[in-house]
Amino acid sequence: MIILGIDPGTLTTGYGVIERKGSLLRLVDCGAAVNGRDDAMPERLKSIYDTLCAVIRRYQPQEAAIETAFYGKNIQSSLKIGQARGVAMLAAVNNGITIAEYAPREIKRSVTGSGAASKEQVQYMIMKMLRMKEAPGALDMSDALAVAVTHAHRADAPKAGTASWKSFIEAHPERVVSQ
Amino acid sequence: MIILGIDPGTLTTGYGVIERKGSLLRLVDCGAAVNGRDDAMPERLKSIYDTLCAVIRRYQPQEAAIETAFYGKNIQSSLKIGQARGVAMLAAVNNGITIAEYAPREIKRSVTGSGAASKEQVQYMIMKMLRMKEAPGALDMSDALAVAVTHAHRADAPKAGTASWKSFIEAHPERVVSQ
Repeated sequence: MIILGIDPGTLTTGYGVIERKGSLLRLVDCGAAVNGRDDAMPERLKSIYDTLCAVIRRYQPQEAAIETAFYGKNIQSSLKIGQARGVAMLAAVNNGITIAEYAPREIKRSVTGSGAASKEQVQYMIMKMLRMKEAPGALDMSDALAVAVTHAHRADAPKAGTASWKSFIEAHPERVVSQ
Repeated sequence: MIILGIDPGTLTTGYGVIERKGSLLRLVDCGAAVNGRDDAMPERLKSIYDTLCAVIRRYQPQEAAIETAFYGKNIQSSLKIGQARGVAMLAAVNNGITIAEYAPREIKRSVTGSGAASKEQVQYMIMKMLRMKEAPGALDMSDALAVAVTHAHRADAPKAGTASWKSFIEAHPERVVSQ
């Protein structure tokens, strides 16, 4: 399964594409839509949308994931992040893929084991997990990969409340450590 | 000139289309993209985007206008409005039309003469100005029409700092009251 992770922002929107085969994760690509501070908002949003649509067409992810809102920032920055998130979600839905949301704490915990990890700790663990020799060019890209990894971990496990452990074990015999 | 006004929201996004001929304004159409509280956010954003793209294709406005952010609301509502605004601006730019922003006070002042007018006062004046016999079905539609009217008033006058009064007067001889 190919998964697209998105870290939205009106200046930099990072994206990360990973492949999950069984319990193995592999880096496919990562990058960012980078806008200038002088660029008008409609053009910034178009560049985010166009970049993500091109990434989706190229790698054909089955699922996408995005960070939920930041809390504790001010109203103006929330509005701007909202605009970037809006067009990012639209890029997914207009290309027929579902998009899941994860809270920042959930992403950090899923990648580093701690919900209070720093961006640098997240980047370090992402490089380890995806066997990357060099750090991505921007922290936004590691954050995007971290959302994708979080989704891979989640998508891996059957949903709570469904009777699907049996089919899960049949589909992933390598995940059963002792029988 | 055909002008599209947009009042964005994730539950209801109002739109209003007016035509300006000289100093005369005429209602072309108004309506809204209405979403359910149970609809997932990506689907809501798609419905806003699709509705606005269809309106733009149908009436071919040359320009669009949208309210700037609300202030004084909380971070979560700013993020949601931001998402709706983002896809609304994208609908304009993806269809090749520019989109101007006006602050709520500026819109109220332009339509009613007072920056502190109520939504009902704005609706009343919009009905008068556009010679509408019935109120639009929702206040979001009057608000969208109010943004369009504000833009029509603004677009009417040449930009400050440009030497275009001469060409403006040539283009609009009817606006010259005494020569």
